[in-house]
Amino acid sequence: MPKPLNIGMIGYGFMGRAHSNAYTKVNHFFDLEYRPVLKAVCARDEAKAKEFAATWGYESVETDWRKLLERKDVDAVDICTPNNLHKEIAIAAAEAGKTILCEKPLAMNTAEGEEMCRAVEQAGVPNIVWYNYRRVPAVTLAKQLIDEGRLGRIFHFRANFLQDWTISSDLPQGGAALWRLDAAAAGSGVTGDLLAHCIDTALWLNGGIHDVTAMTETFIKERKHNLTGKVEKVGIDDACAFLCHFENGSLGLFESTRYARGHKALYTFEINGENASIRWDLHDLHRLEYYDHRDDGVVRGWRSIHVTDGEHPYMKHWWVPGLAIGYEHSFVHQVADFLAGLAAGKPVSPTFRDALETQKVCDAVLDSAKGRNWQKVGG
Amino acid sequence: MPKPLNIGMIGYGFMGRAHSNAYTKVNHFFDLEYRPVLKAVCARDEAKAKEFAATWGYESVETDWRKLLERKDVDAVDICTPNNLHKEIAIAAAEAGKTILCEKPLAMNTAEGEEMCRAVEQAGVPNIVWYNYRRVPAVTLAKQLIDEGRLGRIFHFRANFLQDWTISSDLPQGGAALWRLDAAAAGSGVTGDLLAHCIDTALWLNGGIHDVTAMTETFIKERKHNLTGKVEKVGIDDACAFLCHFENGSLGLFESTRYARGHKALYTFEINGENASIRWDLHDLHRLEYYDHRDDGVVRGWRSIHVTDGEHPYMKHWWVPGLAIGYEHSFVHQVADFLAGLAAGKPVSPTFRDALETQKVCDAVLDSAKGRNWQKVGG
Amino acid sequence: MPKPLNIGMIGYGFMGRAHSNAYTKVNHFFDLEYRPVLKAVCARDEAKAKEFAATWGYESVETDWRKLLERKDVDAVDICTPNNLHKEIAIAAAEAGKTILCEKPLAMNTAEGEEMCRAVEQAGVPNIVWYNYRRVPAVTLAKQLIDEGRLGRIFHFRANFLQDWTISSDLPQGGAALWRLDAAAAGSGVTGDLLAHCIDTALWLNGGIHDVTAMTETFIKERKHNLTGKVEKVGIDDACAFLCHFENGSLGLFESTRYARGHKALYTFEINGENASIRWDLHDLHRLEYYDHRDDGVVRGWRSIHVTDGEHPYMKHWWVPGLAIGYEHSFVHQVADFLAGLAAGKPVSPTFRDALETQKVCDAVLDSAKGRNWQKVGG
Amino acid sequence: MPKPLNIGMIGYGFMGRAHSNAYTKVNHFFDLEYRPVLKAVCARDEAKAKEFAATWGYESVETDWRKLLERKDVDAVDICTPNNLHKEIAIAAAEAGKTILCEKPLAMNTAEGEEMCRAVEQAGVPNIVWYNYRRVPAVTLAKQLIDEGRLGRIFHFRANFLQDWTISSDLPQGGAALWRLDAAAAGSGVTGDLLAHCIDTALWLNGGIHDVTAMTETFIKERKHNLTGKVEKVGIDDACAFLCHFENGSLGLFESTRYARGHKALYTFEINGENASIRWDLHDLHRLEYYDHRDDGVVRGWRSIHVTDGEHPYMKHWWVPGLAIGYEHSFVHQVADFLAGLAAGKPVSPTFRDALETQKVCDAVLDSAKGRNWQKVGG
Repeated sequence: MPKPLNIGMIGYGFMGRAHSNAYTKVNHFFDLEYRPVLKAVCARDEAKAKEFAATWGYESVETDWRKLLERKDVDAVDICTPNNLHKEIAIAAAEAGKTILCEKPLAMNTAEGEEMCRAVEQAGVPNIVWYNYRRVPAVTLAKQLIDEGRLGRIFHFRANFLQDWTISSDLPQGGAALWRLDAAAAGSGVTGDLLAHCIDTALWLNGGIHDVTAMTETFIKERKHNLTGKVEKVGIDDACAFLCHFENGSLGLFESTRYARGHKALYTFEINGENASIRWDLHDLHRLEYYDHRDDGVVRGWRSIHVTDGEHPYMKHWWVPGLAIGYEHSFVHQVADFLAGLAAGKPVSPTFRDALETQKVCDAVLDSAKGRNWQKVGG
Repeated sequence: MPKPLNIGMIGYGFMGRAHSNAYTKVNHFFDLEYRPVLKAVCARDEAKAKEFAATWGYESVETDWRKLLERKDVDAVDICTPNNLHKEIAIAAAEAGKTILCEKPLAMNTAEGEEMCRAVEQAGVPNIVWYNYRRVPAVTLAKQLIDEGRLGRIFHFRANFLQDWTISSDLPQGGAALWRLDAAAAGSGVTGDLLAHCIDTALWLNGGIHDVTAMTETFIKERKHNLTGKVEKVGIDDACAFLCHFENGSLGLFESTRYARGHKALYTFEINGENASIRWDLHDLHRLEYYDHRDDGVVRGWRSIHVTDGEHPYMKHWWVPGLAIGYEHSFVHQVADFLAGLAAGKPVSPTFRDALETQKVCDAVLDSAKGRNWQKVGG
Repeated sequence: MPKPLNIGMIGYGFMGRAHSNAYTKVNHFFDLEYRPVLKAVCARDEAKAKEFAATWGYESVETDWRKLLERKDVDAVDICTPNNLHKEIAIAAAEAGKTILCEKPLAMNTAEGEEMCRAVEQAGVPNIVWYNYRRVPAVTLAKQLIDEGRLGRIFHFRANFLQDWTISSDLPQGGAALWRLDAAAAGSGVTGDLLAHCIDTALWLNGGIHDVTAMTETFIKERKHNLTGKVEKVGIDDACAFLCHFENGSLGLFESTRYARGHKALYTFEINGENASIRWDLHDLHRLEYYDHRDDGVVRGWRSIHVTDGEHPYMKHWWVPGLAIGYEHSFVHQVADFLAGLAAGKPVSPTFRDALETQKVCDAVLDSAKGRNWQKVGG
Repeated sequence: MPKPLNIGMIGYGFMGRAHSNAYTKVNHFFDLEYRPVLKAVCARDEAKAKEFAATWGYESVETDWRKLLERKDVDAVDICTPNNLHKEIAIAAAEAGKTILCEKPLAMNTAEGEEMCRAVEQAGVPNIVWYNYRRVPAVTLAKQLIDEGRLGRIFHFRANFLQDWTISSDLPQGGAALWRLDAAAAGSGVTGDLLAHCIDTALWLNGGIHDVTAMTETFIKERKHNLTGKVEKVGIDDACAFLCHFENGSLGLFESTRYARGHKALYTFEINGENASIRWDLHDLHRLEYYDHRDDGVVRGWRSIHVTDGEHPYMKHWWVPGLAIGYEHSFVHQVADFLAGLAAGKPVSPTFRDALETQKVCDAVLDSAKGRNWQKVGG
């Protein structure tokens, strides 16, 4: 019988649901030494917190996150707030000795992120950041193929994350579901929200980034602000693109926008090696495209791998070949890996420290866009 | 607070997991008057039943399904046994006044199915059959587009269900996970297992089938039987194809096999109407292809609809546009609809009676293949 | 310097253009001992014949095909007339000692075809039928992969040819460009026009067909006839589908229609073998899909082969990898192969005799549809 | 009967064939006032020139391009030499009053290009540059849709041209077929060879480019040089990527490489507008993808337009819907348009002056990569 890990969830929005779903499902499909127990959910709006608790089965409700951190019956804190609260909560949680699962991006910027890293490392608490896409089976398979050396020397990495949900100028900024459009709450626009995912995956698959040249754009300059009721200047980047050199000598090309009509959440990456290439696309997340130059010449071609076999990463825990899982399962996998790490006493990637590297690239990108020059990452 | 519906599950295999997952998830995502409670699981092997109960949170275990039916604290019985037990259990469950959720195909043949229909109708118990693919959002959307009259007069319906998992002659037949290869337990091979899905969807989307001409084949004539340990004649159909006339005057083409190398679970259908056409494919279940001849000529083309928007069937209950759900969600939707039907006091399709129509087509197909002639359905 | 082969073309329609293009291009791309010389074009309408001659560079014009056959300066006759004239012209041409290139289908029926075969064989004249799709490079590659034994035992062959251009009931039948809708000129509808292509390829790739069960349908029962000006009964099949057993034990499924909204000329085939599978599609004719089960498990997938490399069939004669050729090139390849055969004194497939086999299957299919029973091919 | 336009071709390589094919085909498919006559081909290697003349039907051969320009019976000169000869030949041809068709890129750099523009404009001779991809029907259709205003305000343009043929370090540089790897003959690597195509299309579809930031890379630093027989430093760019601002306020992202394993000649572009988006891909050049947000919500999706209908650009001249044309046809279309322009006395785009704009962007890109800074185009 697995041991309980008592969860205290802070926030009840989209990510609160995605994580809660993962906690409630994980032991049905994975054989683990720990099982998450939904001990408490915390939100300033008590009625909403109670409703969320009832839906998901949280045992109790808090309206002040400091109270939550004081509770002895909470082992782990899951931070699902807007970005501007990550630092304060995470540091307090570390000081309270709590295990921490923090939504991405880690922080508003590198400086904040470094404080957070120091706090969790000093406290010695297990920590992880929810860069969930690493654990889509096709993406994990990509990592496995790269680690096996199948690609050879890498020449190119390209990724983008394209959405189209903010094209209307009638869409307001700020508050509740729209905090991602409010620079004060989000820190940046697509850079922290979308590109951060691309960067996390890139660093994991292709190693460090040395330098970048970037451009950002805010297409709609003013929007009504939900918190003030007034039309205000938009402070976030609507689109961001950058070129870079990876430390392994390969070239990178990244782009993100919320103005790419026709794309809902098209996160794609492609990596070209001397011997083989790989590409993936969130809109068909159960497939990995793979091209191997060592195949017999007349039958060489891009293979569309339907990543649903028992021998594919994570898939033996689910259904049978051909039957796809979806977006939410990436969170289940992260919880499963994290709980296995807890049992083994080992950190599970991406830790705060891993996520800090992504933050550094984001900062270099935003600096480069502002300064219209090349920027060294971390530099 | 939703009212409990106490579930007694019979069987613990693949479908036992798929249904249990649906029961445990449904109230997290759907606002319903009922919530399933996992009261008991029943299986002859007590150890396995206990393990399953522990994993999924069933409160108790039974080893005799008759005992389960006697329990007052069980409201609904879920039949996940091999096909040859459906009839006996379902009739007893109806007599015991239980709500019944029965795996597909309904029965070993039409005669059995008719007995079952009479039993549930006489007892007046709510009943449904797990033809889950109707509730993949893209398939439900297809139904909606057809009901809106977008296709006009229908000319063609074609469907197939292609797998490749039984090509090896070393694979034995019968017992546990391989009962689908044993004619005594399954009744038929791909006809009841795979084509039944295609037929259920076809009848739902395109109405009744008038007559059929079919062929079946058993490619591997003998396999070791797990229950006897001996090499025995294979009694099931490895492949089955048929042509048919629908009652609306359109032509049908159906095929199913477990010998289509390269296809894991490729269930596809296409319907061609005077004005528009639709096609779908289980390997990319989150997409629906749609062609509308009324589009402006130079930009006419097949549209690939990523069925993940809030206005698409069922999708407002899940994530945000672009983020896919998977196979398992079709069962969640079926439970959600069934519970809503219970609350409203209305039958939810496919009932036993609906599923009987599929059984009739399967029987006509098998008769036609045997007799090498056209067979009238239900005739 | 290649020797001239003087061509006498009968007909000036769609196929007259496709063949003339092949004759004028072939020596630019293929190094051959023969070169076609456009000696004469023959058509009843002299003005149209003259216009065609001017466009394509035919040296002269005839209005009576018997005159054309009498000409000493014509070596080879290309029959591009409606089907009902093939037999008479071909037999006369054989008797005149002409080399013959005949449009498909060979004849109105098997009996006619047999007469034609006897005539060319008795006369000993080189002969070929324009089943051009065999020489799309991707299709030729499929043949090569099968001949190398890559697929192993074959289980399934399925093909269809779907169009949508006759859905409007306002479309008349008969005369000029619409002779394909006129049973008197065409013999049959989609069976001889479209399915004949599928059958030719199938026999070439997968061997003989043993027996068939078929259905045909005429969706629009009456259309205005261009030759009479009156609304008349439609005599052709608008759609035809059949199931069959191949002599190698595999199962076949074929379908053709001109009522599949959204498909312009979607000719597809797929073949499933024990070890590998292949599929192809005329709408993307430069690609071949290939699945090989012997690939390493985790990276197994359907490969999309872009058939444009120098080592692919015919492609070294064209451009560079990645640059596609189109529909018309299949005719150029057929001419190139035919001229090489002439030089070598060898027959080039599909000869009249080869094409007769397709005719036999077509006849069995039409008989089966009429009799609603299984028909043995050639029986 | 069309009037002759006597062609003098300089060069006999890949492009010499592509253009000659266009000249010999164009009047078979297009009704024009002019017809190209293959008067002479010029190359230093007389044997090769004679072989080429024999294959294609050129009436005569020259070995000195100055002699060719002196010939009164040559109306138009087609420059298919390596890039470093374009300027000298083009200026001399202009002075000789010849019509000029020049391979792309126009010149080694902007300064050369400006001289060439002045020369043709001063001489008043018709001129065009072979940026052939504009006249792939799907690309022309994209232009038409944009000109109709279907996309609305443009936010993004992205394009890339990916190849993989120079990955092997054993491949030498320079001489004959490999002059594209020799900086002295080609001026640049992928920038002038591949990106120039992307830029030409971008300027045509999306207007001028304001500024750029770029990076280039030479992955294989040394290769054997075919002209010297020695291992020498590689002077070209193997890969080049840049970000840019278009004058209409949209953002651009461009990439080109010969090190993208798995891509033979994958030229793609995508343009995202407020209301609609378009994308295209040379590997499936007969399709255009189109997404229109004004479609009814539940059936919105990317449409795959099979650009083979009579109402699509150029297609009424070819076959019937569904039957694709290929790469070579883009040259036929360019000749057809150019001849129609001659007849009408109107310039046909891209003229030398149009192509100069692409040259300016290429120069800015190369300058930016060298200087690691943003560069204004033309600045």
